[in-house]
Amino acid sequence: MSTSTATLMDGTALARRTVEETAARAAEITRRTGVTPCLATVLVGADPASVTYVKMKQNRCAKAGIRSKHVELPAETTTEELVAAITALSEDPEVHGILLQHPVGPHIDERAAFEAIAPEKDVDGVTMASFAAMGFGLPGFVSCTPGGIMRLLDAYDVELSGKRAVVVGRSAILGKPAGLLLLGRDATVTYCHSRTQDLSSVVREADVLVAAVGKPNFIKGEDIKPGAVVIDAGYNPGNIGDVDFASAAERASLITPVPGGVGPMTIAVLLAQTVEGAERQLGL
Amino acid sequence: MSTSTATLMDGTALARRTVEETAARAAEITRRTGVTPCLATVLVGADPASVTYVKMKQNRCAKAGIRSKHVELPAETTTEELVAAITALSEDPEVHGILLQHPVGPHIDERAAFEAIAPEKDVDGVTMASFAAMGFGLPGFVSCTPGGIMRLLDAYDVELSGKRAVVVGRSAILGKPAGLLLLGRDATVTYCHSRTQDLSSVVREADVLVAAVGKPNFIKGEDIKPGAVVIDAGYNPGNIGDVDFASAAERASLITPVPGGVGPMTIAVLLAQTVEGAERQLGL
Repeated sequence: MSTSTATLMDGTALARRTVEETAARAAEITRRTGVTPCLATVLVGADPASVTYVKMKQNRCAKAGIRSKHVELPAETTTEELVAAITALSEDPEVHGILLQHPVGPHIDERAAFEAIAPEKDVDGVTMASFAAMGFGLPGFVSCTPGGIMRLLDAYDVELSGKRAVVVGRSAILGKPAGLLLLGRDATVTYCHSRTQDLSSVVREADVLVAAVGKPNFIKGEDIKPGAVVIDAGYNPGNIGDVDFASAAERASLITPVPGGVGPMTIAVLLAQTVEGAERQLGL
Repeated sequence: MSTSTATLMDGTALARRTVEETAARAAEITRRTGVTPCLATVLVGADPASVTYVKMKQNRCAKAGIRSKHVELPAETTTEELVAAITALSEDPEVHGILLQHPVGPHIDERAAFEAIAPEKDVDGVTMASFAAMGFGLPGFVSCTPGGIMRLLDAYDVELSGKRAVVVGRSAILGKPAGLLLLGRDATVTYCHSRTQDLSSVVREADVLVAAVGKPNFIKGEDIKPGAVVIDAGYNPGNIGDVDFASAAERASLITPVPGGVGPMTIAVLLAQTVEGAERQLGL
């Protein structure tokens, strides 16, 4: 049994509030303009997990008063065909946000596909324009999981300025943008990854730890600085996070559970950004 | 007197070799196509330091067989006028690279001006597209000073994978891209800045230190980890770096002098990238 003393960061509750606010904004858009905000979801192939994710996102859209337009493409779709399909959505005035479900298959140039998303519809925050905007602190959409992490930190009044933040993982849509957003909030940010030597000693420096590495129970409580804020953005089979929760909760001051921490925030940010996109595109 | 034991990283010599190679490539372009690679320099106003910088860059272009096309605009130029001038250069097939001399005056939206540079002509590495390419490890131009730092590290065979790199400073064209390039080479990267608490203890972790903060002699030798590689990208009045050279050289294994370290590499990378741009645009 855990002798947890940490406060749980309740992503489920925060996501619910975020989605409620988003639904109210969506309804207001529809009331004022007659237009319902619309998220286009693009799925290539029929990977069961991807099918489930997309269906879940569509259901969540529906509950928030966001229309979804689904584009399903066969697994053998070429890069050119996928780029053409996404370009059509970028140009469709009835679509306010575009989500390309990852992964798209190894024969496709995923970066080219992402870049076909118009920056003003990149509500999933995956384009190079969105990445640079996060890096420079300019207006734009954030990657959804890092955006959800920042909302959680703010909801729990976590001081970031001058604090040491350690991000474990450097993916283009999670670790890297999370570090840039933390840097933009004046944290002293360290990026760790698979090549990092003596990871334990780096993790021990963290006032705020973001684990985004995709290895179950990879980070142990003995490496958590007492009083640290621990954000577990890991998503591993069996709903297991990257942080060994029981041991970490004994030392952290605040910690996200898995599930119910970062996960629900990711989709909440997707919905919120879709509605923001609709507001901007409709000139509201 | 310093009891320096560190090896100097000779940016002057490396820059000379880089420019020689660049000049040979420029001559080859001219020989094969009849076209001389061309860098457009854009200067707004008549700030004496900026005038000197631009003149120096033009002279260095001339010596490397690169044509320069100079656009001088009055200090009262508006953002719209500057964007229009840069857009014209972006569309001019005779121009292969574009450099907008910083600063442009507080009434101008400098980011909008930078973004008018076509990514394929952004040989100074200042656009959001170039920033994102550095972040994602995609082909593109690097910011010149960080690019020069990476060339220096490579010339001195500095191992980066798994090492702790600390970047002091987070500007859009120096600190931030330097960190991304080091991360792309598998260093464990920490960004420090004005809000960092207990900077000394963070600097002491650095196997590779990049000082890019713009405060003369700001980093003292007592904070240099013995054997560290020290890159001083500071440029302060009187040719003084950000690192207190005498005390740092007693502990570093390798160190860049100021002047003669990073400085000469910046312009060498600008020239090299201009020729690369010309090669690509001419289909060579």
